[in-house]
Amino acid sequence: MGYRLAELAAQVGGRVEGDPERIIEAIRPLESAGPRDLSFLKDPRYRGQAAASGAGALLVGLSLVDAVPGRDLLVADDPSWALARLLAVLHPEERRPPGVHPTAILEPGAEVDRQAHVGPYAVIGAGSRVAAGAAVLAFVAIGRDCVVGEGAVLHPHAVLYDRTEVGARSVVHSGAVLGADGFGYATHQGAHHKVPQVGRVVLEEDVEVGAGSTIDRAMLGETRIGVGTKIDNLVQVGHNVVTGRHCILCGQAGIAGSARLGNYVVLAGQSGVAGHIELGDGAQVAAKSAALASVEPRTQVAGIPAVEMRRWRRQVALLSRLEEIVRRLRAVEKKVGEER
Amino acid sequence: MGYRLAELAAQVGGRVEGDPERIIEAIRPLESAGPRDLSFLKDPRYRGQAAASGAGALLVGLSLVDAVPGRDLLVADDPSWALARLLAVLHPEERRPPGVHPTAILEPGAEVDRQAHVGPYAVIGAGSRVAAGAAVLAFVAIGRDCVVGEGAVLHPHAVLYDRTEVGARSVVHSGAVLGADGFGYATHQGAHHKVPQVGRVVLEEDVEVGAGSTIDRAMLGETRIGVGTKIDNLVQVGHNVVTGRHCILCGQAGIAGSARLGNYVVLAGQSGVAGHIELGDGAQVAAKSAALASVEPRTQVAGIPAVEMRRWRRQVALLSRLEEIVRRLRAVEKKVGEER
Amino acid sequence: MGYRLAELAAQVGGRVEGDPERIIEAIRPLESAGPRDLSFLKDPRYRGQAAASGAGALLVGLSLVDAVPGRDLLVADDPSWALARLLAVLHPEERRPPGVHPTAILEPGAEVDRQAHVGPYAVIGAGSRVAAGAAVLAFVAIGRDCVVGEGAVLHPHAVLYDRTEVGARSVVHSGAVLGADGFGYATHQGAHHKVPQVGRVVLEEDVEVGAGSTIDRAMLGETRIGVGTKIDNLVQVGHNVVTGRHCILCGQAGIAGSARLGNYVVLAGQSGVAGHIELGDGAQVAAKSAALASVEPRTQVAGIPAVEMRRWRRQVALLSRLEEIVRRLRAVEKKVGEER
Repeated sequence: MGYRLAELAAQVGGRVEGDPERIIEAIRPLESAGPRDLSFLKDPRYRGQAAASGAGALLVGLSLVDAVPGRDLLVADDPSWALARLLAVLHPEERRPPGVHPTAILEPGAEVDRQAHVGPYAVIGAGSRVAAGAAVLAFVAIGRDCVVGEGAVLHPHAVLYDRTEVGARSVVHSGAVLGADGFGYATHQGAHHKVPQVGRVVLEEDVEVGAGSTIDRAMLGETRIGVGTKIDNLVQVGHNVVTGRHCILCGQAGIAGSARLGNYVVLAGQSGVAGHIELGDGAQVAAKSAALASVEPRTQVAGIPAVEMRRWRRQVALLSRLEEIVRRLRAVEKKVGEER
Repeated sequence: MGYRLAELAAQVGGRVEGDPERIIEAIRPLESAGPRDLSFLKDPRYRGQAAASGAGALLVGLSLVDAVPGRDLLVADDPSWALARLLAVLHPEERRPPGVHPTAILEPGAEVDRQAHVGPYAVIGAGSRVAAGAAVLAFVAIGRDCVVGEGAVLHPHAVLYDRTEVGARSVVHSGAVLGADGFGYATHQGAHHKVPQVGRVVLEEDVEVGAGSTIDRAMLGETRIGVGTKIDNLVQVGHNVVTGRHCILCGQAGIAGSARLGNYVVLAGQSGVAGHIELGDGAQVAAKSAALASVEPRTQVAGIPAVEMRRWRRQVALLSRLEEIVRRLRAVEKKVGEER
Repeated sequence: MGYRLAELAAQVGGRVEGDPERIIEAIRPLESAGPRDLSFLKDPRYRGQAAASGAGALLVGLSLVDAVPGRDLLVADDPSWALARLLAVLHPEERRPPGVHPTAILEPGAEVDRQAHVGPYAVIGAGSRVAAGAAVLAFVAIGRDCVVGEGAVLHPHAVLYDRTEVGARSVVHSGAVLGADGFGYATHQGAHHKVPQVGRVVLEEDVEVGAGSTIDRAMLGETRIGVGTKIDNLVQVGHNVVTGRHCILCGQAGIAGSARLGNYVVLAGQSGVAGHIELGDGAQVAAKSAALASVEPRTQVAGIPAVEMRRWRRQVALLSRLEEIVRRLRAVEKKVGEER
């Protein structure tokens, strides 16, 4: 029930300064960690708390090796990634046993692998397949002809409309809705007529979708979320959107229909992307900003409408000088006798 | 298993150019359509893709009849509306058979028409009525004394609090919550005391509510969504809001309590409307904008706070010229010998 | 079946002007109230509607005693709070009877007090406790080792991940998700690796969480919502956020990870708070605004990025004068012969 500090260091390719035999049982925040806990210091601002902490050992990066003298340290090249790894070691996720809960409903033709877990009151539609190691938790509603890949997890109350595909190891949190109808209407004689949405949603592998997020099915074809893309809570992804690999969509961001995101695109919190535009690889949209036109690769934009980050910063700075500008203008006007 | 192109044209009052006998089985995007598929060209920018497409026929409007010579065409006055119609013909929605799933729970006094469909694990409260042709899908929670009109569809996990009314042919997507308590408190001696919300929510006919959207019950009286209004995903509608007919509320828009929208009002994505104000018929609020004061009919507004669209455009343009303005001011100051 | 006006006045420490024996059965809006209804006038703008109302009596504050002569009045010092109280008296919430619905699933080791209500198809995980007077309604998913305090209400489809704690008398509306994984990844060799989120969510007493809102579990430790804090619909609260007592978070507001809010903080609709910053007691962030830096106690901020409210107002005013400024600058340039 615990690991030697040296064992933990080995797990993440790090090294120990101090006692390699110290036993560590858990990872805890600086303020509550005790002698059998590992804590961490990533930001030098918290150096004081680290010194005062009761933690048995501290995980640090190379730059902070000398920040807290006299403590047992686990030193890692990439302390954030080491922390992620060590949390998985010391706080392993509960294994959900294979098997289908007796209250789950599998429509005829639904196939659930024997190594998959299906929880109470889940409903799996005809023609859908759940692969080995996947977990379909309580109240999950899976429509027809869906695919849930190996090791994927659908948390309680996730919803998959017909034909949705969830890639291997992807995670869908509670309340997320994949595959609802895109928002498409043809206005004819004063009424908005629904354009049937007959496409589908595909999450590739290692995608995560946060609680309450919604990804609409395509009108035709696919709405597709690329490998390793991570989506936070309450994010809206419109129909026919395609994202590349390893994008990050932060909380309450929204993407209108048919927009295309390259790889490694970042949308900060509450940002928005207009329909039918393209964000190049590595493009970043700042928090609260609205990308209304396409964005070049590796370009950061901010503002409403979004402009290049540096330009936005100057605009904000100048905006705060408007009073001064008016005063100076008035002074010049007086000097030249300009009437107002 | 397919329609002659001429038959499809007749369905939408259009005409054929080319072979009226061509058999069409599906509608597909330009890039994946084959010889038995109809595709479409609505925007001349995609003319190249249309020419290269393997589609058997193309749906076009009058202005694009000559855009792709030598192809079989279905020419329609209103191609968007024709596309909506033809999708319904060629990709008809699966009919849900009438009947109540054995796991559905109908409280005493709940009435479900024999021509309605109630899915697995739906719960329908006492005094609620579900009309003919309606579909109440898996895990839908309907409170007491609710009404679900003819042909209405409640997708899996939709929630109706007590006394909510959903009009005929209205559609409520997964995770939408109709009738939760409005956000009303009376602050008294330092604590916020809940103002009981005893009103209800009414959706009129042909309304659509997107996934995860929330429409709060009125404190007293009704929160009411007018005929044909379409609401996208993750939209918030506060208590006592009333919208007119055929409004369009795009994704993540929000309307604070007691605001009133006329007919044909459009709220673009992530826009907001303050409480107790009025948006006249045909008013439009741009994406990301915040209408903090009432808006005249047929007026487009943008910005935070929102001003008339043209004025907002000028502001944005001038904002980008602030650096130039400061430079020019400095030049004039130098000329007149103004000290700084 | 009704109360004498004098009885109602006594309930709220108010007094009657007019007939104390008048029988009141309900509270209704001015436009639909009848002779056995109480209505109310809080804003003098509605004086005309009040005069025209068929209401048997009107609730008013001291300042509006003379606003509608000749009517029976219930005069209260704090009419908003009186209205909240009287709604609870005249429109009492339906009592949910104690007991566990036969379709609810209690995992081994889940404890439900005999005075609690558990509705159809609720699932309560191992080690979780539901206290007396609490109501766990249809389809609520409670993970393991959760606590639902006395008199708390979880509306249909609320979700609690493992170890979530809901304080006494707190209310969680439908579709709200408490305790989903915080949005934390360590990017390593081009891929985003999940940082396991092993903390939890704690709602203290008298908290309310609106429909579809999401509060993420902490990475380590707790995400904590203070006593009496009220959260509207579709609000996002990131991991490790801590709020003080009696905060108000309006619809679609968002708080990024590790931000700290003092007591009585107000976030208006669609506002945002950056991660790792601190909002002092009584701080207020205006609608649509983004607090990107810490805010002093009792300070109102607005804008993106948010600045002090007064400064923001001046910026907005000056922004609308930019055209005039450019004109005046041009006039001065002409006068001094400045070339452009």
